[in-house]
Amino acid sequence: MPKLDLSQLPWRTGSGYPGKLAEPCAGRSVQPLGDPGGLTQYGVNMVRLEPGAASSLRHYHMEQDEFVMVTEGICTLIDDDGAHEMMPGDCAAFPAGEENGHHLVNRSDKPAGFLVVGTRTPTETGYYSDLDMMVKFAGGDFTFTRKDGSPLTAEQTGEDT
Amino acid sequence: MPKLDLSQLPWRTGSGYPGKLAEPCAGRSVQPLGDPGGLTQYGVNMVRLEPGAASSLRHYHMEQDEFVMVTEGICTLIDDDGAHEMMPGDCAAFPAGEENGHHLVNRSDKPAGFLVVGTRTPTETGYYSDLDMMVKFAGGDFTFTRKDGSPLTAEQTGEDT
Repeated sequence: MPKLDLSQLPWRTGSGYPGKLAEPCAGRSVQPLGDPGGLTQYGVNMVRLEPGAASSLRHYHMEQDEFVMVTEGICTLIDDDGAHEMMPGDCAAFPAGEENGHHLVNRSDKPAGFLVVGTRTPTETGYYSDLDMMVKFAGGDFTFTRKDGSPLTAEQTGEDT
Repeated sequence: MPKLDLSQLPWRTGSGYPGKLAEPCAGRSVQPLGDPGGLTQYGVNMVRLEPGAASSLRHYHMEQDEFVMVTEGICTLIDDDGAHEMMPGDCAAFPAGEENGHHLVNRSDKPAGFLVVGTRTPTETGYYSDLDMMVKFAGGDFTFTRKDGSPLTAEQTGEDT
C-alpha cells in the first residue's frame, strides 16, 4: 500500500567510497524509501548522521537534480559559499550541472537527519570538489577515478591499487 | 544559493479545479520549493491544509511518480484501501500508473502539512477516482474533461458550460 511502514524498512550504514575515503561517512546511515515504495523516476532516502558524520564527500551532479529537507537535529550544509546551518524543515536544492559542491555534516553532539531526493538517470557523472576524484554511474555500477579518468592512487585511498 | 529561504517563498491558496470542484481544496495552500531552487526534473512543494481541507480531488497519475512526507499535524491518506492516519515523518509513495486514487485530508482541528515530490514530464494524464473526470497536461496547460474526453457538465462544475 502507498503508506510506507518505516519501522520495517532497512537501514544501511557507511558508504561505497574506496578505502579511507569512506571514513567521513562511517557514521552515516541511509534508509531507502522510494525504491520500496515502487518509485523508479527518482530516489528518496532518509539519511541519519551521527555526530561528526558527513552525508557524502563534497560533490555535485551533472545530470541529476538533488533536494534535501532536514528532519531532525542540526545539519551544516557546506558548499562553495561556506557553511550554512540547517534546522528541521529547512530545505536546499541542487540543480543538475550546477558546479557547487555540497554535503551535509553533523557538527552537533546529537544525531541529525534529512530526507534527500535525487533523479534516477541511466548514467551520471559526479565531481568531488575537495579531491581529484569523479564518479561515473553506468549499467548499475559506480566507478571512482581521478578527474582525468585514471585510477585513484594508493595515497588517495590508503589501499594498494 | 542552494539553501532556500522559506520565509521569502510565496504561497498560493486554493486549486485550479473548475467551479465548485475547487471547494474541497479551498483551505489548501502550496509553497513551491523546487522551482525557485532551480530544479527542473521534479517538482517539490510544501502543502498546508487547514482543518477540513483536501490536498486534491482523489486521483492517480499515469506518467509521474509521487511521494509525500507529512511534516506537521495529522493528515489522513484516503486511497482505494480506506483511510490511513499519517503523522509527522510518515511517508507514502505513489508509482506512476498505479491506479490507486489518493489524496490527503485534514480531518483534525489543527493545521497539517506535508512535503510532496512529483516528476516533471512534458505530458501527463491523471484520473479522478470518485468523479467522471480526467486531466491532461500538455504544452504547459491543464485541461479537465470527462473520462471520455467530453466537456465536464454544468452539473459537475456548477457553472454554465
